[in-house]
Amino acid sequence: MIEYYDVSGCYVLRPWSFAVWEAIQAWFDSGIKKLGVKNCYFPMFVSNAALEREKTHIADFAPEVAWVTRAGQSEMAEPIAIRPTSETVMYPSYKKWVQSHRDLPIKLNQWCNVVRWEFKHPTPFLRTREFLWQEGHTAFANPSDAEKEVFQILDLYAGVYNDLLAIPVVKGRKSEKEKFAGGDFTTTVEAYVACNGRGIQGATSHHLGQNFSKMFDISYEDPAKEGERAFAWQNSWGLSTRTIGAMVMIHGDDKGLILPPRVAAVQVIVVPVGFKTENKEWLFDAVDKVTKDLVAGGIKAEHDLRENYNAGWKFNHWELKGVPIRFEVGPNDLAKNQVTAVIRHNGEKRQMSLDGLSEAVKTLLDEIHDAMYQKVLAQRDSHLKTTTCMEEFKKLLDDKCIILSPFCGLPECEEEIKKASTREDGEGAQMGAKTLCIPLEQPKQELPSKCIFPSCCHAAKAFALFGRSY
Amino acid sequence: MIEYYDVSGCYVLRPWSFAVWEAIQAWFDSGIKKLGVKNCYFPMFVSNAALEREKTHIADFAPEVAWVTRAGQSEMAEPIAIRPTSETVMYPSYKKWVQSHRDLPIKLNQWCNVVRWEFKHPTPFLRTREFLWQEGHTAFANPSDAEKEVFQILDLYAGVYNDLLAIPVVKGRKSEKEKFAGGDFTTTVEAYVACNGRGIQGATSHHLGQNFSKMFDISYEDPAKEGERAFAWQNSWGLSTRTIGAMVMIHGDDKGLILPPRVAAVQVIVVPVGFKTENKEWLFDAVDKVTKDLVAGGIKAEHDLRENYNAGWKFNHWELKGVPIRFEVGPNDLAKNQVTAVIRHNGEKRQMSLDGLSEAVKTLLDEIHDAMYQKVLAQRDSHLKTTTCMEEFKKLLDDKCIILSPFCGLPECEEEIKKASTREDGEGAQMGAKTLCIPLEQPKQELPSKCIFPSCCHAAKAFALFGRSY
Repeated sequence: MIEYYDVSGCYVLRPWSFAVWEAIQAWFDSGIKKLGVKNCYFPMFVSNAALEREKTHIADFAPEVAWVTRAGQSEMAEPIAIRPTSETVMYPSYKKWVQSHRDLPIKLNQWCNVVRWEFKHPTPFLRTREFLWQEGHTAFANPSDAEKEVFQILDLYAGVYNDLLAIPVVKGRKSEKEKFAGGDFTTTVEAYVACNGRGIQGATSHHLGQNFSKMFDISYEDPAKEGERAFAWQNSWGLSTRTIGAMVMIHGDDKGLILPPRVAAVQVIVVPVGFKTENKEWLFDAVDKVTKDLVAGGIKAEHDLRENYNAGWKFNHWELKGVPIRFEVGPNDLAKNQVTAVIRHNGEKRQMSLDGLSEAVKTLLDEIHDAMYQKVLAQRDSHLKTTTCMEEFKKLLDDKCIILSPFCGLPECEEEIKKASTREDGEGAQMGAKTLCIPLEQPKQELPSKCIFPSCCHAAKAFALFGRSY
Repeated sequence: MIEYYDVSGCYVLRPWSFAVWEAIQAWFDSGIKKLGVKNCYFPMFVSNAALEREKTHIADFAPEVAWVTRAGQSEMAEPIAIRPTSETVMYPSYKKWVQSHRDLPIKLNQWCNVVRWEFKHPTPFLRTREFLWQEGHTAFANPSDAEKEVFQILDLYAGVYNDLLAIPVVKGRKSEKEKFAGGDFTTTVEAYVACNGRGIQGATSHHLGQNFSKMFDISYEDPAKEGERAFAWQNSWGLSTRTIGAMVMIHGDDKGLILPPRVAAVQVIVVPVGFKTENKEWLFDAVDKVTKDLVAGGIKAEHDLRENYNAGWKFNHWELKGVPIRFEVGPNDLAKNQVTAVIRHNGEKRQMSLDGLSEAVKTLLDEIHDAMYQKVLAQRDSHLKTTTCMEEFKKLLDDKCIILSPFCGLPECEEEIKKASTREDGEGAQMGAKTLCIPLEQPKQELPSKCIFPSCCHAAKAFALFGRSY
């Protein structure tokens, strides 16, 4: 999936992982285009003046900004930042483009790299100093259109997880403490990683309100109130290559990676078995024909005809790489007009007829997708608990659960809950619970009147989903 | 197409130009995938140690490299470069991946941004400090496979110009002086810009030979000679957003941009004409239906129903933006079951029946593509001259010609020819002729024995194509 690199915090995305990203790109890009969003490209460099325009926003990013100070042998007059995100890159243009309400909405997206020079220990996909993402930036004349879009995008993000990656997610709003700095509210899709019981943020869709439009003067003469300026209502939303990290952790097992079928670079690997010198040519031709038929049928199939490895080695190799289906093609099966399919995620073997094979494989790939999704869903649901008691909360957390609890919503209280639940994690770091989100779909049970934190004297506003998190 | 930006040499690619890039990406990406090339992503940062590994190569790029020296408030221990191109980024990984001849070929490509901090006057698309491109990097066990690929890629580059952008190009090799530093030879596609008579390099495909594989130790035990190392044979090839600049200059006219149909974000703009209050709703519905039918038929069609602009304003607006076909939809035409099509590149008007409109538009778009190509070809061919006389050469150059002349191939001689032909250009800069390429397809006439430069005492090796160039 990745190769290590000699600049700390940077990794190479090899074709095997990049193909996952390409599948996500194709799906999501087509989704946003249906909403009228257009792609564009803004520079990766930001002047200090633009970067510092919105104070809350820059306060969040400043410690991680990489600065270019030299070109060739010349020191630059002013250091130039590399975008950590592009609000401050794009909005000066938005100001120029918006002269009248007729210039709205603006709906732009870009697929690009961003740099956040984190000093915490880097982790491939999850915490990298450069990563790839898409960032959408939209501006509307009225808040209801903007808010509607926030949730349309959130649904597309949920779709990336549910429909492509076979991962269930909880849609919700971020708490005040966890929301995007400078925005009005942040929505998120949150997944659950069973191996260590942590939540992982999947993608976020922010409603920026008028904060940035006021800072960057994205405004026009208000048609309703003569002589007054109306400011645009803005959103920004992003999905990054971290997605691939979530997929790896959530679906992997002791044998290695398990790729969800709809994003796998190779969906079916075809391996010849039981060949001898005398039948090799015939058998290899048969393997080649099966593979070509699958490809012609729209399946991402490849064969492994290497002669310097035996079948057992190849089985292990492709299991490690997570290919959803392995076809074993040998003389006995061929005599019965069939192949043996071995399914990666559950080890199941089944014979499949060569007649109508591509269609049967398509059905099987969908079946695998659904089974992988259901397995992860069951894992998550068995670790998704509800409590109103702080002592039980801590115990559940240590049992690798994510927890729905009544919450007042205040940052101070969230800080206290984090402190109260802090334990050393496996790698020696201190980790407490934070809110993953306030789920859009609230539990059916009645909301208790009090926040879970015992010394909080505020009323609970909603059930929040808490957990240790990436 | 672009918006100006507050970091010098950087520009915003707006959706109108980015759509051209997306069309190029889709076409070229599918072409290289058919050749077995896979996409990946390598970091944008390069350590100084890796960057300096190949001396000829870095000598070429060093003056333009942007350096990151600070993250947040911390000075970095070692400055880190931003890739000007990725040979030195990728090849340390290639070394790890190549252990045996079975690990070859490696065929990777990435779509990314690169930074070359030029100090010359920046120009949108043509000379920008950050630009987008694809860079392919391949490694083979033997030179003939590598060389074969160089020309397969060159054909794809020619295809981007011929088949998408409606621009004829000359395929050729770069001279020693103009080739890629550190490579064995460079091939190129060269176009001609009539307005100022200059050549413009369209894209380059390099055979690196074993220069980089020796510097980066991309090698394996030679199966033919026990105990010896065999080094990989490598190519690199790239096509950038400069392509869009070539398209703008070559096809544009006094009224603005002319988009070649196959890369146009909007192929048909549908404008209502001759409406009055009483028929407006009916007419707008008809316009909407025509547009939707075209979209359903696979045409990129949009309508302009804005009521605060009149039809004349809209005609100008969409002409300026270069939309290939304008449909004028009015009551008189509709009564005859037809619309009026106005073709951007030649101003021609014709009536088109509403029956089978999408198919007729597809045919028309192809016709426009061909006519645009032929027009540019004729312009170029009338300025493509052959001479063996240096005096005539200079005169032709001042007459905005590109010139085929016998050439010895030596860098010193090319330098002399440049000096001898130097004139001040329109913007006050000194410009002499250089070789655009040594065309693969040589003129039918016999090659004279002597190089065109009078005091050169070497034999001509081939006809080279000379010109002033971007």
